[in-house]
Amino acid sequence: LATGDRDTARLLTEDLHEADLGAILEALEPEERTGLIQLLGTAFDFTALTELDESVRVQILEELPAAAVAEGVRELDSDDAVYILEDLDAAEQAEILAQIPSIERQALKRSLDYPEESAGRRMQTEFVAVPPFWTVGQTIDYMREEEDLPESFYEIFVVDPAFHLLGTVALSHVLRSKRPTPISELVDEAHHLVPATEDQEEVARMFERYNLVSAAVVDEDGRLVGVLTIDDIVDVIQEEADEDLKALAGVNAEEEISDTVLWTARSRFPWLFANMFTAFVSASVIGAFESAIAGMVALAVLMPIVASMGGNAGTQAMAVTVRAIATRELRGRTARRVLARELSVGFLNGAVLACFVGSLAGFWFGDPHLGVVIGIALVLNLIVAGTVGVLVPMTLDKLKVDPAVASSVFVTMTTDSVGYLAFLGLATWWFALR
Amino acid sequence: LATGDRDTARLLTEDLHEADLGAILEALEPEERTGLIQLLGTAFDFTALTELDESVRVQILEELPAAAVAEGVRELDSDDAVYILEDLDAAEQAEILAQIPSIERQALKRSLDYPEESAGRRMQTEFVAVPPFWTVGQTIDYMREEEDLPESFYEIFVVDPAFHLLGTVALSHVLRSKRPTPISELVDEAHHLVPATEDQEEVARMFERYNLVSAAVVDEDGRLVGVLTIDDIVDVIQEEADEDLKALAGVNAEEEISDTVLWTARSRFPWLFANMFTAFVSASVIGAFESAIAGMVALAVLMPIVASMGGNAGTQAMAVTVRAIATRELRGRTARRVLARELSVGFLNGAVLACFVGSLAGFWFGDPHLGVVIGIALVLNLIVAGTVGVLVPMTLDKLKVDPAVASSVFVTMTTDSVGYLAFLGLATWWFALR
Repeated sequence: LATGDRDTARLLTEDLHEADLGAILEALEPEERTGLIQLLGTAFDFTALTELDESVRVQILEELPAAAVAEGVRELDSDDAVYILEDLDAAEQAEILAQIPSIERQALKRSLDYPEESAGRRMQTEFVAVPPFWTVGQTIDYMREEEDLPESFYEIFVVDPAFHLLGTVALSHVLRSKRPTPISELVDEAHHLVPATEDQEEVARMFERYNLVSAAVVDEDGRLVGVLTIDDIVDVIQEEADEDLKALAGVNAEEEISDTVLWTARSRFPWLFANMFTAFVSASVIGAFESAIAGMVALAVLMPIVASMGGNAGTQAMAVTVRAIATRELRGRTARRVLARELSVGFLNGAVLACFVGSLAGFWFGDPHLGVVIGIALVLNLIVAGTVGVLVPMTLDKLKVDPAVASSVFVTMTTDSVGYLAFLGLATWWFALR
Repeated sequence: LATGDRDTARLLTEDLHEADLGAILEALEPEERTGLIQLLGTAFDFTALTELDESVRVQILEELPAAAVAEGVRELDSDDAVYILEDLDAAEQAEILAQIPSIERQALKRSLDYPEESAGRRMQTEFVAVPPFWTVGQTIDYMREEEDLPESFYEIFVVDPAFHLLGTVALSHVLRSKRPTPISELVDEAHHLVPATEDQEEVARMFERYNLVSAAVVDEDGRLVGVLTIDDIVDVIQEEADEDLKALAGVNAEEEISDTVLWTARSRFPWLFANMFTAFVSASVIGAFESAIAGMVALAVLMPIVASMGGNAGTQAMAVTVRAIATRELRGRTARRVLARELSVGFLNGAVLACFVGSLAGFWFGDPHLGVVIGIALVLNLIVAGTVGVLVPMTLDKLKVDPAVASSVFVTMTTDSVGYLAFLGLATWWFALR
């Protein structure tokens, strides 16, 4: 790269898979990335850009001349092209689109007009559609002669003259039938239609549930406009699971390890800020028992144990509930069964742990009464933890708030506050400290 | 179902997708499930069993007569059959296998002999393999005539006489070539081989990285033994992401909402038990400052704020790191960059939050000194949180321990202890309380 030796660079990258070429781009210093791409010129496969973190991709696209990007994007399947263009701001998009011939530009624009994270954004606009009265032989001949078909595909669509979908035929069924067989005999009518405006998360759930490999995308008039294939959906599934995990930990779903310090700090701040208020709420519970603590400092030493263990039990119940909601397992009758189960689990584990914690605390401060008090407080807090662990995500889901994002704040605030309240309140009453 | 009306039941379930039939089985009371299956008899599609939670599936399989299960399993693709049989204990497996004809039994047994969660368990043993000297026409004729081929497939394999894989051909390429074209001209040699003993998580990562739709599975001698398709891998990807999320929350990866109370309580207990010890460690830090607290009860009220906010910041850094490790983004040079980034983020957010927390605390207790002390303690704890949030998962990963499972314990123990130590220690020194 340093010597600008174009032939060697081309030779070295020629046989690389796009994913590996992408990895090389990410490992390079930011200044060197566009250098490599321009060195490779037309030999650079723009598909590699789809494998990059968003921040790296945007950096590269902004530095490359619009004409070069336009040419590279034209070589791609429409879904990859849209994926690359969608992160750019409107002015840059327009500049690149202006360099693309009209027909292709229209198709890209239509896809970009669909909302973010919708099926329309992810779909491929190249597909094979045939009328039902064709035979297998005609279909095979058409596919042999037609130039403008997708790189690879797994199903062909059967449509009426108005481009309404009548059904699908798996390629393997076409191959395994005799040439004179009419396509209409092979059609599988139990197809799954995806409206172009559908959220990608819903689409991914459909693919998973019905083990689909591809699905037809239709516009508001029910006309076939594209196809979604499983390889796009795999990325969506991975993204959505990632979002849930990060959301539970209070991290923005879009955070990537290549983001800048300032961006990261700012995106994590709101969560910590919310946590500050909940922490003050719990602290005010403690504040109500200042005189009890002044009379018996051991209470201050032991109280975080009750709060921390409740927090953990609540997080366990919450994680299971959030996942069950995300995978649509939790509804109606199941919900009540799950709540009952969490209450019982909280009571059981609370009772067993109370024996351990009670004994340890009793011995530590040489006061069995303290052990009894902390034990009872722990059982109470673990039952509450199980309850809020189920109820908070379920309530948020009903209120159309993403339970993964907001649950933790409420659950830990409750387990902290109830932990302090139960322990300090019980101790005040038991030892008559007031 | 109550009236035992077989024809109506068959009529009602006939057009159902296996996933929907599975959902109906799960919604039924346990006693009714086998009743429905036996009522449907041969009309019951055993594929529906693959859609159930493990505990429900095992319950049904144990209650059904072995002969009925054997017959149902024979109808399935080999990967679904293995999926259903693998959860049963050895004696029940043997009983069912005994009722299956020898050749099919051998194939199932071979798959079951591979380790759990390996490629060999997930693969399908039906596939299309042809020699390279065949033409497209011969291949199409073979597929038309051969009976025993998989339900649907996307690639055909090209093999030498010893069944070593030479390459793959996408079905769409076969369809789009003229009959006299030799297969050898269409072969894509850049295929991805999966050893049958490979862990499914590694395989899923390969599928994702290279956007594969199917991949060949080979035995230790490099001979083709099966094929993995993306629909199996989608389940694996979902499972693995699920495991990470649950592990971070201290929940067993296999926990499902249909598990019993006792099983759930027992599987969650170890984590809470570990948390008990770490809670006592943090408590002992507080214990060292008993006299300081006795002299100034406000310290007891405020100290959980420092610990809790540190815990949250640590969890944020940890979640990002754990995911970066899981997706193999974090290695070598990147690791040092990420650590530096987390330190800076911790310092930045710590500084901003310290202003808020310091002011609030100072006003609450009418003592600006207290505000300064808690502010400094908070900055320190957030820097420590960022550091351990990165270092703990990375160290565990180096020690070959799953970072998702064990990180939380260490991270929260550190942020709790450091939070108490920094705040109480600083206060003792500042106010000369000792």
